[in-house]
Formats: sequence, structure tokens, C-alpha cells
Amino acid sequence: MSHQQYPSSLLENAVNEFSKLPGIGRKTALRLSLYLLRQSEVEAEKFGNAMIQLRREIKYCRVCHNISDTDVCQICTNPARDSKTICVVENIRDVMSIENTQQFKGLYHVLGGIISPMDGVGPGDIEINSLIERVEKEKISEVILALGATMEGDTTNFYIYRKLSPFNVRITTIARGVAVGDELEYADELTLGRSILNRIDFSNALR
Amino acid sequence: MSHQQYPSSLLENAVNEFSKLPGIGRKTALRLSLYLLRQSEVEAEKFGNAMIQLRREIKYCRVCHNISDTDVCQICTNPARDSKTICVVENIRDVMSIENTQQFKGLYHVLGGIISPMDGVGPGDIEINSLIERVEKEKISEVILALGATMEGDTTNFYIYRKLSPFNVRITTIARGVAVGDELEYADELTLGRSILNRIDFSNALR
Repeated sequence: MSHQQYPSSLLENAVNEFSKLPGIGRKTALRLSLYLLRQSEVEAEKFGNAMIQLRREIKYCRVCHNISDTDVCQICTNPARDSKTICVVENIRDVMSIENTQQFKGLYHVLGGIISPMDGVGPGDIEINSLIERVEKEKISEVILALGATMEGDTTNFYIYRKLSPFNVRITTIARGVAVGDELEYADELTLGRSILNRIDFSNALR
Repeated sequence: MSHQQYPSSLLENAVNEFSKLPGIGRKTALRLSLYLLRQSEVEAEKFGNAMIQLRREIKYCRVCHNISDTDVCQICTNPARDSKTICVVENIRDVMSIENTQQFKGLYHVLGGIISPMDGVGPGDIEINSLIERVEKEKISEVILALGATMEGDTTNFYIYRKLSPFNVRITTIARGVAVGDELEYADELTLGRSILNRIDFSNALR
């Protein structure tokens, strides 16, 4: 199929915009645009305005840097949460993933990136200083490092670890190991090796 | 996974809107929303406004009912096209598909639907009267029925055929048969049967 002809520049424009989204090809973009065209004007406006408002009106919590509707987010202001524990994550999505597990009742700190010299991202480009300030000023007893098990994650973990070591705070990192439900034979050697080194008392595994 | 918690109602709203689109689940909707959040405000507005304008400002050609930026579409006003031949299709997308083949140089007529008693769609609900008017008033020599090979398509074809029979116009329908590139064994019996009944001179097949 050669260059696709569009009967309307408005349609072409909508297809172009949809195609910019990750994982949306031009064929899907056309299908989505024609779907919108079949909706009422009110529905189409609700859709478009939701996207414009999302970007224009979003706030970032000035404590943990998670997205929020308010200056300080609902997690940070929730008195039922353990304000002595901070879980450090790379991005918003990680907060949502951990919240979905319902296993963590502390607060978060969203770095907004990860140290990656290859991509020109240094410690100053992400929210590390504000993390250190929080530990310095608030009564934090534990910082959980919950970054990806990549070289960049390890580098960032180590940098934060060094910066926080002068403070009287426990620093932990999430466990690496064989995924729940996985057979040993499918785990890679590094993961399997780490899971043996970091073995835990069986009584703890029963919790 | 139980009910997903969103850190911001703006994000939740965007995810809800994306999820309404066909084939977009909540997980993809979240991915797309977070992508938009990472774009500049200008980019996000371009995206949202493209969708609003598409629905609000779209025009339909008053001759063929295809979508258009102008009162009469670019196909209908193109003097290079054969204005004596009308290809009848169900929707806008069919026009685009046929245009992409570059095999048709006549005009179109978009019905905007298909006769379907089960769905409560009768002849009066789609653009059949305006087709008959065109045949009556313009010098049309051939009407090509290019509807889907379904019961509804056949019903609509037959209805139009009867309505147009008083006029001096050739009525044809697109060929049904074994798809180009397909092995006989993969064609269903009905299609194979029709392709034998409607066989053509081999010299014509060579064109």
C-alpha cells in the first residue's frame, strides 16, 4: 500500500496524532479516529479535553513528586500511613504498581528518572537531593530502594546509599529472586544466584 | 488485581476516556495517558484539539456523503474522474480502501449504513433516496454495488437493484471469489462455488 489518501485533512490530522502514541500504528489510528467520528460532539469533546487537562492541570506532590490533584498528594497526607518509611521508585507507574500489591503502607519518593551516564542523566537531574532533605528533616527510620534490577538501578541505589549513610536510617532494597510461580529452570543464573545468596529463614517465607 | 487506584483524578479521567476506544484496555490506556503526560503542553493540546476538531468541524459531501473538508468533496469535484460511474459503499472506510487500490476512477455514494432489519435499519435510514436522485438527475451509466458479502449486503444490493431498474443504468456488483494469493483449499465452499458460477474469460483475467 502506497501513501494513504485521506478524504479530509481533519481526519488525517487525527490519524497523525493517534499514530504518535506508542504502539499505535496508522491502521489502528484510523480505526480510532473513525470511532471518535461516530460519537456525539459532547463525547468527542470529553475525550479531547481529558487529554488537554491531564497535561495542563496535573500537579506533582511537593513532598514525594508523585502526580497529584493537590499540592501534597493523598498518600503523603493520609494519617493512616506509616510516615517513617519511604519507598524510593523511579516513576509514577512504579507507585501505582506497588500500591496495587497492597503490601506497602509507608510513603513514596518518586525520583523521576534513574542515574544513567549513557543517557546523560546524573544525580542532579533526578529528585535525590529532595530525598536526602526529607531524611534529614523528617523522622524517617527506613528507606526502601525499589528500583529496577538494571545497571542504572544498581548505580542509583549505590549513590543514594552513600548519600544516606551519614544519617541514622535503615536502608533496604527490594528482594531479587525467582518470580512467584516460576520454575527454577526458567530463572536466569544471576537471579538464581542472588536468590541463594539472599536466602531467608523459612519461617519468614511463611508470612 | 482489584480496583486500580489512581494518584490523580485527571489521570483516572484520561484513562477512562482512552479505555472507551475500541481495542484499548485499561492497561494500554494508562500507558498512553502516561505518555501524554511526558509530552509538552503544546503537544498534548495538539492531540486533544485534533480529536475535538475532527468531530466538530467535519463536513459530509452533499453529493456522495463521504467526509470532506468542503461542501462537495475532492473526488466529486475532480474533473479527471469518470462522473458517469458511481460506486455504492457502506461507509467512509470502504471509500478509502477502494481509493487505495487505485483501480477505480469513478465517483462514490456512501450509504452510511446497510439495510438490517435485525438492527432496525431500514432503507429510509440510509442514503438510498439520494442515490436514486443522483441516477435520475445526473447522466449515470453504471452503478457498481460494492457492499459486503453478507446477508445485509445482499438485501441492500437487491433493494437498490429494484429501485434503480426503471432507469437506463447498468447495475453491477463487485466480484466474489477466491482471494488473490489464496490456495483453493482455504476458500470456503460458498466462495468457491460462486467463483465457479461467476467464472470469467481467461483473456479478461490477464488484464
